[in-house]
Amino acid sequence: MNSILQIDERNLQVTTEPGVITEVLQNAVKEKGLFYPPDPSSRGSCFIGGNIAENSGGPKAVKYGVVKDYVLNLEVVLPTGEIIWTGANVLKNSTGYNLTQLIVGSEGTLGIVTKIVLKLLPFPKYDLLMLVPFNDLEKAGEAVSAIFRAGFTPSALELVEIDALKIVSKMVDSTAVPVTDDIAAHLIIEVDGNHQDTLMAEMEAIGELLTQFDCGEIFFADDAQQKAELWKLRRRVAEAVKLDGYTIEEDTVVPRAELPALIHGVKELGTKYDFKAVCYGHAGDGNLHIRIKKEGSIYSLNNPDVIPALKALFELVKSLGGTISGEHGIGLIQKEYMDIVFTETNLKLMKGIKKIFDPNNILNSGKIFD
Amino acid sequence: MNSILQIDERNLQVTTEPGVITEVLQNAVKEKGLFYPPDPSSRGSCFIGGNIAENSGGPKAVKYGVVKDYVLNLEVVLPTGEIIWTGANVLKNSTGYNLTQLIVGSEGTLGIVTKIVLKLLPFPKYDLLMLVPFNDLEKAGEAVSAIFRAGFTPSALELVEIDALKIVSKMVDSTAVPVTDDIAAHLIIEVDGNHQDTLMAEMEAIGELLTQFDCGEIFFADDAQQKAELWKLRRRVAEAVKLDGYTIEEDTVVPRAELPALIHGVKELGTKYDFKAVCYGHAGDGNLHIRIKKEGSIYSLNNPDVIPALKALFELVKSLGGTISGEHGIGLIQKEYMDIVFTETNLKLMKGIKKIFDPNNILNSGKIFD
Ligand SMILES: Cc1cc2nc3c(=O)[nH]c(=O)nc-3n(C[C@H](O)[C@H](O)[C@H](O)COP(=O)(O)OP(=O)(O)OC[C@H]3O[C@@H](n4cnc5c(N)ncnc54)[C@H](O)[C@@H]3O)c2cc1C
Ligand SMILES: Cc1cc2nc3c(=O)[nH]c(=O)nc-3n(C[C@H](O)[C@H](O)[C@H](O)COP(=O)(O)OP(=O)(O)OC[C@H]3O[C@@H](n4cnc5c(N)ncnc54)[C@H](O)[C@@H]3O)c2cc1C
Repeated sequence: MNSILQIDERNLQVTTEPGVITEVLQNAVKEKGLFYPPDPSSRGSCFIGGNIAENSGGPKAVKYGVVKDYVLNLEVVLPTGEIIWTGANVLKNSTGYNLTQLIVGSEGTLGIVTKIVLKLLPFPKYDLLMLVPFNDLEKAGEAVSAIFRAGFTPSALELVEIDALKIVSKMVDSTAVPVTDDIAAHLIIEVDGNHQDTLMAEMEAIGELLTQFDCGEIFFADDAQQKAELWKLRRRVAEAVKLDGYTIEEDTVVPRAELPALIHGVKELGTKYDFKAVCYGHAGDGNLHIRIKKEGSIYSLNNPDVIPALKALFELVKSLGGTISGEHGIGLIQKEYMDIVFTETNLKLMKGIKKIFDPNNILNSGKIFD
Repeated sequence: MNSILQIDERNLQVTTEPGVITEVLQNAVKEKGLFYPPDPSSRGSCFIGGNIAENSGGPKAVKYGVVKDYVLNLEVVLPTGEIIWTGANVLKNSTGYNLTQLIVGSEGTLGIVTKIVLKLLPFPKYDLLMLVPFNDLEKAGEAVSAIFRAGFTPSALELVEIDALKIVSKMVDSTAVPVTDDIAAHLIIEVDGNHQDTLMAEMEAIGELLTQFDCGEIFFADDAQQKAELWKLRRRVAEAVKLDGYTIEEDTVVPRAELPALIHGVKELGTKYDFKAVCYGHAGDGNLHIRIKKEGSIYSLNNPDVIPALKALFELVKSLGGTISGEHGIGLIQKEYMDIVFTETNLKLMKGIKKIFDPNNILNSGKIFD
């Protein structure tokens, strides 16, 4: 279950078993000049199978989409023991209901994925990376949607709040990013493509635009090492803030332009419910990870203080047109909050589908819903 | 049911009712510099609601994807009278089963879509178009996958067999494309983007590559009028060949590099089953429309001669890793052939899902399956 079965260079597809580490698969296809974009920050340790189950994303999703946009066909062992292929190895498919997309993101509740056919792209030749400080968190959020409205599509657009950056810089002992008192957050912006000069022009135009949002001095990563250093900091934020006591992580997602309202609301909720929050994540997608802690308290999900705070957070997210999880899934814990974003009818349909696939409720029973 | 409800320029989204003509929606968002890519050749007459129901594609799908890649959220009236929104207005969503993607392509069998939230892109500033003749149909098919393998992603890559071109040129009384005896097929290739000079370079590099496949002299469309003329020819092929007696249309799709094998196989089947076939379509996606006729016979789908021929065609498609429909759907007619590409278990799951949504089988009963 942990082999790459075939890299099909003629069709730009790869067939793999689920137990391949995401980064291993990415590197294997990159050797042939090919690109599998979905890159969760955990890519060095998570598996393609788990990524399919959660419909994972990552920084590149803002330009290239998430796992669901790359899965062409799945071999699935059903709870009844029957084995199916969900679709065909094709780029377009209007043949019956989309069973492939039903399995993607179903968190192992409908079947066990045993083979996976993924679409690949040509690997883009160049990328440029910059880091932009803002002295106002909401302004950083506003800048995000302005970039897209102006016609740019960066290959990554990440936001990291200053508290998170301080923590991760200390953990990995890095001084790569200056941390001064007037900075509230950074945007990490990457563009990629096949023509270096047009990328340069694009980067400069984005920088120019950002001055309208009171950004500070922009830092351009000069070489592969500087880029790697910046990405290392970004990728290790979750782990670092968790170690620092921000034990509860939420994976909220809202329409992109509602980011400032979400950020503002989170801080207000912190005051109301007496928690501290750090925000970071895939701002270009409106996908904000929010980690919370309470000073002097072991703040865990079964702490009774936490439930009303999270309820209020998800109600805020819902009121902004968003939902509970952008890329992590629901699992055992978020399921308590599903009725905030779904009606009883939605849940009834989902449970009905579960029953069709798994009449005896033997697969990941209790995940997503009871 | 035929109004565009909101063009959300901050979030690059549009909310619409289903009864809006596809081209009307495209033009409305284009006025704001925004782009809704899925563009079936029928876009002047078909509706967004129908497009959702069939998961339609079109020439731009090769770079930009099909309807399913743009639908964020749907309001659906269920056969039980209940009304749901399937998801949220967000770019990423891992919250429960993907009901949105289940409705897309379900051909009106699961619910009536009453509101639609679509993702939009910034409208690309430039496009270039060229027409490339080949004196061998299969060579044209080989050239298609070579283009992607070399790292190019055209915004359209269409194939039109010479017989189809002759018929449509006559119908619209056009001499825009020279038709000489040595030509077997044309590729229509478009690239788009925000930088005209890099597009030029790309077009030339593609042209250079194609000489390896014995292409003839390349025609570059010089201005908007020439482009429009070429696209008019392409868009009217289906109608023209139908009027010429090619009454039966199939919407086959295979992995892109299998196009030459599919084309070769179709011609062989024509000899075996005594029909004439013309091929055209979205070659970049491996999506080949195949129209057949029989000289001197009114060749319709309930003609008993036709069934074994279509069976053989779909078995060929399946053996190449493909499937029955890339963008048109199954409807009442192709459903006879579903068991060629799906196992009984697949069909059982689909029927089970239908029953969950529509327990009394009142919606488009008999479409997709009995
Ligand atoms: C530090 C850190 C950073 C992260 N950053 C990101 C990020 O940027 N973007 C993002 O999207 N996610 C991120 N994640 C979460 C990441 O998405 C998950 O780690 C991953 O998607 C799940 O893969 P896994 O191999 O860990 O699966 P597991 O945790 O082992 O499994 C997850 C679920 O999938 C099911 N499952 C596993 N294999 C199969 C199979 N073959 N068939 C059916 N069901 C199966 C399991 O039963 C389980 O319910 C991050 C996680 C960490 C720890
Ligand atoms: C000349 C020509 C060229 C074409 N070229 C292309 C092409 O390039 N690419 C492509 O993909 N397709 C193409 N098509 C097919 C095109 O996709 C269909 O015309 C279109 O997708 C269906 O839209 P419609 O409005 O015609 O739907 P209809 O034919 O009216 O309906 C189609 C189905 O959808 C259902 N439906 C309609 N509205 C709803 C709703 N609101 N909720 C639920 N179900 C609904 C109906 O019940 C029906 O079963 C072409 C067709 C023609 C005639």
